Amino acid sequence: MDDTRDRTPSPLSPIGIIGGGQLAWMMADAATHLGLELRVQTPHGDDPAVARVGTNGWVAGGIADPVATERLATACQVITFENEFVDLEALGRLERRGVNFRPKLAAIAPILDKYHQRQFLQTIGLPVPPFAALTYDGDEDRTTWEDGSAIAFPIVLKTRRHGYDGQGTFVIPDRATLVRVWERLDRQPVLIEAFIPFERELAALAARSPAGDVMVYPIVETQQDHQVCTRVIAPAPISPTAAAEADRIARTLVEKLDGVGLFAVELFLAHGDRVLVNEIAPRTHNSGHFSIDACHTSQFEQHLRAVADLPLGDGSMHCAGAVMVNLLGFERSVGDYRDRRAAILDAIPSARIYWYGKTSASPGRKLGHVTVTAATANPTELLAITRRIEQIWYPNGTPPEK
Amino acid sequence: MDDTRDRTPSPLSPIGIIGGGQLAWMMADAATHLGLELRVQTPHGDDPAVARVGTNGWVAGGIADPVATERLATACQVITFENEFVDLEALGRLERRGVNFRPKLAAIAPILDKYHQRQFLQTIGLPVPPFAALTYDGDEDRTTWEDGSAIAFPIVLKTRRHGYDGQGTFVIPDRATLVRVWERLDRQPVLIEAFIPFERELAALAARSPAGDVMVYPIVETQQDHQVCTRVIAPAPISPTAAAEADRIARTLVEKLDGVGLFAVELFLAHGDRVLVNEIAPRTHNSGHFSIDACHTSQFEQHLRAVADLPLGDGSMHCAGAVMVNLLGFERSVGDYRDRRAAILDAIPSARIYWYGKTSASPGRKLGHVTVTAATANPTELLAITRRIEQIWYPNGTPPEK
Repeated sequence: MDDTRDRTPSPLSPIGIIGGGQLAWMMADAATHLGLELRVQTPHGDDPAVARVGTNGWVAGGIADPVATERLATACQVITFENEFVDLEALGRLERRGVNFRPKLAAIAPILDKYHQRQFLQTIGLPVPPFAALTYDGDEDRTTWEDGSAIAFPIVLKTRRHGYDGQGTFVIPDRATLVRVWERLDRQPVLIEAFIPFERELAALAARSPAGDVMVYPIVETQQDHQVCTRVIAPAPISPTAAAEADRIARTLVEKLDGVGLFAVELFLAHGDRVLVNEIAPRTHNSGHFSIDACHTSQFEQHLRAVADLPLGDGSMHCAGAVMVNLLGFERSVGDYRDRRAAILDAIPSARIYWYGKTSASPGRKLGHVTVTAATANPTELLAITRRIEQIWYPNGTPPEK
Repeated sequence: MDDTRDRTPSPLSPIGIIGGGQLAWMMADAATHLGLELRVQTPHGDDPAVARVGTNGWVAGGIADPVATERLATACQVITFENEFVDLEALGRLERRGVNFRPKLAAIAPILDKYHQRQFLQTIGLPVPPFAALTYDGDEDRTTWEDGSAIAFPIVLKTRRHGYDGQGTFVIPDRATLVRVWERLDRQPVLIEAFIPFERELAALAARSPAGDVMVYPIVETQQDHQVCTRVIAPAPISPTAAAEADRIARTLVEKLDGVGLFAVELFLAHGDRVLVNEIAPRTHNSGHFSIDACHTSQFEQHLRAVADLPLGDGSMHCAGAVMVNLLGFERSVGDYRDRRAAILDAIPSARIYWYGKTSASPGRKLGHVTVTAATANPTELLAITRRIEQIWYPNGTPPEK
């Protein structure tokens, strides 16, 4: 692949995506419009994105299956990620043989392990909560964070890999609970960090081109229920100072990573406009779905543009405000919630529904989302829209526990 | 199908579409987001929409092939049209056996023949240019229109069926040319009508639900080069009076037709805010592509909502202004114009490109389009954007002749 790459005209296509869930499903829209072809590596023929690329565009294989990625590479000019839970070491062998990963594996490596991620963020000077690792027996007794400050409960414990939507994250009220939880996790290496009494949670999405151009989306507020993102308010109702700091953090991150494509930064906004990094994802993100309908260039198109060597687009909003509400499953069923979807369209004529076509539902599973753009950025008015949607969607008006 | 229809929950799905070009291709986006399945009847496996529904969703057959439509009907709860050049008589037999066409065939019947269309429009009281038919030898000598007024050259001659993008339309400067053109057409029955010295051409798109709700999109200006639509300005820079009249015409039309789904009305704006109907299409339309990016609910989603029994959406614009520029082929080639597409994205970061994936290009063929939304409705500024796009796209800066 390496020797032909220089002769390949822009845009690069087909593009291979490791992962075939709703993020790849939404990338397919952008790819179609831009005239780019996609292939996806995903385990199941009924994963959402397979319906978009057809069986000819589907490489059957798990996310961490490097043999499948090797097959994917033979059909693609460039490979990118919907899901970062890959086998980095095995992919490294492909990259050294010339497979063109965007972002490069070196830009993902510091992120996969949450403890290493914290260390990396600290190294590049970004603000993070005080943290430490629990690795060896006896670590549960430690009284200071790595920075030397004193540990005070409550704290947060996180497994170091493969957590998303709050899986593997525990709020720990006291040392006895810390011991109990760690033991339940078989004393695997974990990350602990200070619990930040945040005022809001924010997200910043940054895209970077191979040439080094960087574009940061308007900062949004994310709201979680039971640790799953349920709604996004764009733009976030925060001070210009806080927004500028979030923007700076995202920009610094993609530059220091030498990242290509879209990166998401989940942030805490603490008292006094202090902004701290919560987590990083080296990919498109739930917090950016609003951009499909509210921005000139969506996060999915932006990511593909960067990956395909097309110029970055304009990520600014073309409306004053927008909300995104996740439609989570609330029962174990094979039903497709047709009536409730129709009821949302009935209640809110300007609603845009995205229904991912998953073949089974379960409580807390992301089945689709709704975006509503508005002529106002007033958070009270925007939140009223989200409540209206949730009241139609959930039998008891609020998102379920998993 | 008839007996089960009442028990079918809304939305109706799968939806069958007769036609598989770019209109069906764009409908596929809306269908995907709403969670509706599509099947398409179209002759060629490389027609744009086949890539969106997969070969399993493709019924191979020409637009006017009723046997193919019968097969389509067995897989669908409702059938609609991307293309109106169907065999109405044969489809009538299917409709009488219970196949659910939306719109009903009775709503399409008055439109297919342009002379009958003019008669129908006159009957329902809508303003049309003076017109007449040339059917029998000697008709070329007639000196008055059907309304009794005197024929004055120039006039326009149109073949009565299957014309689109100006095919089969001739501006006739004098009687000698009239005779010559009609003879070249083997004296087939044709429509002639007064040439309207219009100030602008407009389009009005109306959608109607099965329950009778009607929604009219903002009136747009369409601009043609060599009789092919090249650009659309939204909203049209016209007086409120003219806009209200265009709105009224579109509304009256869908109501009198008892139409379901989207109907397009091409209009002339003549001196003194006089609005006249030029042509009708019983389907989504090139003049409405701007709605994908500029309106809360696009024409394609609106059409599917009506057809599937979902509530109509909000067709209003969420931005002050927008332009749509068709990307026409300008050479016989198999090239895919990659460089020029990239150059547009480079020059206009907020541009949204829709590339239909046609497998061959020819001068004047619609290969894709670009939409740019703007914070202004100023027509001078909007037209400047269209010129910029055309200067990048066309080797000599302007659209080609076919």
